[in-house]
Amino acid sequence: MLGNAELVWKGYAIHDTKDWKNFKVIDFEPKQFDDYDIDIKIEYCGVCGSDVHTITGGWGETLLPVIPGHEIVGHVARVGPKVTTFKVGDRAGVGAQVCSCLKCEPCNTDNENYCPKPVHTYNSKYPNGDIAQGGYSTAIRAHERFVIPLPESLPLEQAAPLLCAGLTVYSPLVRNGTGPGKKVGIVSVGGLGHYAVQFARALGADKVVVFSHSPNKKDDAKELGATDFVVTGEDGFSEPHKGTLDLIICAADVSHGINLMELMSTLNVHGRFIMVALPDEPLPPIYAMQLSTNGALLGGSHIGSKKEAIEMLELVVKKGVKSYVEVLPMKEASKAVQNVKNNKVRYRHVLKVDI
Amino acid sequence: MLGNAELVWKGYAIHDTKDWKNFKVIDFEPKQFDDYDIDIKIEYCGVCGSDVHTITGGWGETLLPVIPGHEIVGHVARVGPKVTTFKVGDRAGVGAQVCSCLKCEPCNTDNENYCPKPVHTYNSKYPNGDIAQGGYSTAIRAHERFVIPLPESLPLEQAAPLLCAGLTVYSPLVRNGTGPGKKVGIVSVGGLGHYAVQFARALGADKVVVFSHSPNKKDDAKELGATDFVVTGEDGFSEPHKGTLDLIICAADVSHGINLMELMSTLNVHGRFIMVALPDEPLPPIYAMQLSTNGALLGGSHIGSKKEAIEMLELVVKKGVKSYVEVLPMKEASKAVQNVKNNKVRYRHVLKVDI
Repeated sequence: MLGNAELVWKGYAIHDTKDWKNFKVIDFEPKQFDDYDIDIKIEYCGVCGSDVHTITGGWGETLLPVIPGHEIVGHVARVGPKVTTFKVGDRAGVGAQVCSCLKCEPCNTDNENYCPKPVHTYNSKYPNGDIAQGGYSTAIRAHERFVIPLPESLPLEQAAPLLCAGLTVYSPLVRNGTGPGKKVGIVSVGGLGHYAVQFARALGADKVVVFSHSPNKKDDAKELGATDFVVTGEDGFSEPHKGTLDLIICAADVSHGINLMELMSTLNVHGRFIMVALPDEPLPPIYAMQLSTNGALLGGSHIGSKKEAIEMLELVVKKGVKSYVEVLPMKEASKAVQNVKNNKVRYRHVLKVDI
Repeated sequence: MLGNAELVWKGYAIHDTKDWKNFKVIDFEPKQFDDYDIDIKIEYCGVCGSDVHTITGGWGETLLPVIPGHEIVGHVARVGPKVTTFKVGDRAGVGAQVCSCLKCEPCNTDNENYCPKPVHTYNSKYPNGDIAQGGYSTAIRAHERFVIPLPESLPLEQAAPLLCAGLTVYSPLVRNGTGPGKKVGIVSVGGLGHYAVQFARALGADKVVVFSHSPNKKDDAKELGATDFVVTGEDGFSEPHKGTLDLIICAADVSHGINLMELMSTLNVHGRFIMVALPDEPLPPIYAMQLSTNGALLGGSHIGSKKEAIEMLELVVKKGVKSYVEVLPMKEASKAVQNVKNNKVRYRHVLKVDI
C-alpha cells in the first residue's frame, strides 16, 4: 500500500498558450488536504479535446502554468479522515470535475456536473484560491464525491478515457431516452463518437446512424455497431433519414463544415440534437423558423454525474464496450495533443506516467 | 342558414412586397371543392405577425397577390359530402394551416402541425396547384381536419386570435409540462405573450416570470397573472432568477436587442427555451459551451394540433382567459399591419369583414 510520503507532485505543464506544444515538467502544490479528500497516484491519463482547447487558449484565458488532463486513473494513496467509500490501494479515477458546492439543487439531485460553482480538474481555482492541476502528472487530489471507483476487470488504460469522453456521451444518451425502439444519430466517429455508437447499441437503440464528414470511417462505424452510415459531405445526405431520428449526439465541431440545419432535419417531431463537442467558435446561424418545422430542440450537455459514471462502467463491463486507445509515454504529451488537434488518433491517446 | 350560392370570394390583397401597406380588394378562386372541405363565411380575422413577415417578404418569396390572415372565425356555409363533424350554420374557425398530407406519422399522432407537407392558410399551394388565400376576405375553404369548432359562449372576435396566437403558445406550454410545481418564463407581452402569461397561470404554474425589454408592460403583466416582472434592458437582469425556471416561452424577436444567453441562464438543469416568434434574422450567436453550463435546450415550435386547439378553447372558457383585442373594419387592414409591425397594438388587432 502506498502512503502519502511516497507521493510526489510533478506534472507536464504548458507555460504559454502560444507555445502550447512545449510541455515542461514542473513541481506543483496540490490543494490543501481536507477531510473528504482523496489522493490518487496516477498511472494513466487520457488526452481530451478539452486539453487542446485549454492549452491553446481557444476557450478563453488559461491559468498558467497549466497541467492538463482529466481522464485520470490510478490507485488511492491517501484518504481524508471522513472518506468512507475508498481506502488506500483502491483503483480509482477522476474525470473532468474535482469539486462543486455540494449544497445546491443540482448537487443534491445527482446533477453535480451542473453545479454553478464547479471546480474543474485543471485550469480552475478552489474557493480558497488553491489551483487545480490535471492528470499529465504523478498525482491528483479530489473530493470523494468526484472520485470514481473502477471495476476490477477493466484495464486502467481502457478505463481512463471513459471518465470524460465516455461519460460525456453516455449521460446525454441516457438522459434523452436512448433504449429499445429508439433511433439515434451520432455525428463524428472519434474520441467521443466511438463510445457514443457503442453505448447507443449497448443501451438497446434499434437504429444507430453515424454521420461522418468523410467516407473513411465507414468500416469502423460498422465495427462499433452502427446500423447506417451517412457521409455529410454529399448533397442531400439527410434525405433518406428526414424526420426519423429521436436523438442526435453531435461530437463534431459544427462551427464549420457541417450543415447543422440539414442534420437537424433528420430529427422527428420534438427530436433532440445534443452538442457534446464544445467548439471555440459559435454554432452556425440558426433560424427559429428552421427549428419550428419539426419542433426540434438543440441542447448542450456537460460531462455526467458520478452516479452515471458508475452505471456507465457497469455497462462497459457487461456489454464489452471497448476503448480504442493508443498508449504513449507521458513525455510524448506534445505529440499526443497535436494528434488530437489534427484528428490523427484512433480514437484516444492515453499517456502512461513516466516521471 | 347560409348556402353556397350566398358566398362570395373577395379579399384584401397585397400585390408587391415592397408596397406592403397597399391592400386592394380582389376576387379570388378558392381551391377545388373536395369531399372533406368546409366553406366558412368569415366574420372576423385576427392580424398576426406572420401576416407582416409575409407581405413584407421577410420570410422569403411570397406568392402574389396574397391575401393574408389566419385567425379566421365565422359560420359554416357549405360542407363536403364526407364531412361529419360540422353542419351549415355552425360556428367555426381556421388557424394557420388548412391541410396536410393526412397520412404521415405526425398526421397520425396529433402532430399534423408538424406534417412535412403542410398547406398553410395563405401564401401556400395545394398539391394540385390551387392557391390558398387567407382570411382578410369574405370566405375560406379548408379541410375538415383543420376547422376548429368554437364554444358557443366565446364571442367570435375573442376567439379569432386564439387560433394562431393563442395556440402557438398553448401548445409548447403544454408539451413542455407547464402545470403545478413548475416555474415558467414568458419573454415579451404582446399578441402571443399576453396569452402565454394567462395560459401558464391557467395551467397551474407556480411562478410566471415575465421578461420585457421595457418597464411599461409591468401593470399589464401583473393583470395577466405574472408573479414576477423583469426588465431585460437592465444590467444583471437574470441574476435573481438564475437556474430557476423550467421553461421559457419566447415571443420576442431575439435576433437583436435581447441577450439570449443571459435569458437562458435563468433555466434550471435541462430547462427549455422555446422560440415561438419567428424573426426574419438568425438567432444571436450561440456557443455550445454556454448551452452546456445548465444543459439547456433551445427549441422551436409550430402552432399546435387541432386536438390542442379544442382543449385550449375549453381552458379559455373555463378559466376566463381574455383576448385583448382592438377591432377595426377590414378596410383598415393597412393600419392594422403597420401597428403590428410597430408594436402599437394592445395586444391583437381583429378585422371585421366589411366587403
